[in-house]
Amino acid sequence: MKVRIFVTLKDGVLDPQGKAIHHALESLDFAGVNGVRAGKLLELDVDPSVSREEIDKMCSKLLANTVIENYEIELAETALEPNS
Amino acid sequence: MKVRIFVTLKDGVLDPQGKAIHHALESLDFAGVNGVRAGKLLELDVDPSVSREEIDKMCSKLLANTVIENYEIELAETALEPNS
Repeated sequence: MKVRIFVTLKDGVLDPQGKAIHHALESLDFAGVNGVRAGKLLELDVDPSVSREEIDKMCSKLLANTVIENYEIELAETALEPNS
Repeated sequence: MKVRIFVTLKDGVLDPQGKAIHHALESLDFAGVNGVRAGKLLELDVDPSVSREEIDKMCSKLLANTVIENYEIELAETALEPNS
């Protein structure tokens, strides 16, 4: 079973990586971007026996720093479709 | 308009970060995890005038290294729901 975990910085937490990406986009003349926030995407391949509660525990214990980060869990049967 | 971009390593590309997370999960006694792949999640706040093609260009020019990475674009009106 494929599980995707999205880890994002909480609102108000400074994000220098996102800021750097934003500036880079501007210097490449991409207009219309008002802000960029950088986060993490973790794709786990887990046994179907693993419960959502267990995945939640993995996130709060290891995968996300809940002081400054939020996480979101998405269960999916298939992996990402490649774009190219 | 909120745009989420998922950047993941292509199949076959070594992922030491994912491996380290996998080992860490095992050493914390989480069973049933067969593999972990680490990627990036970028949340862009863009003007509605920005087209999908333009976002695609941002990805291929700056946000993803298409030699070793795939990317996926998701348009959404709202940001991530905080879990806590």
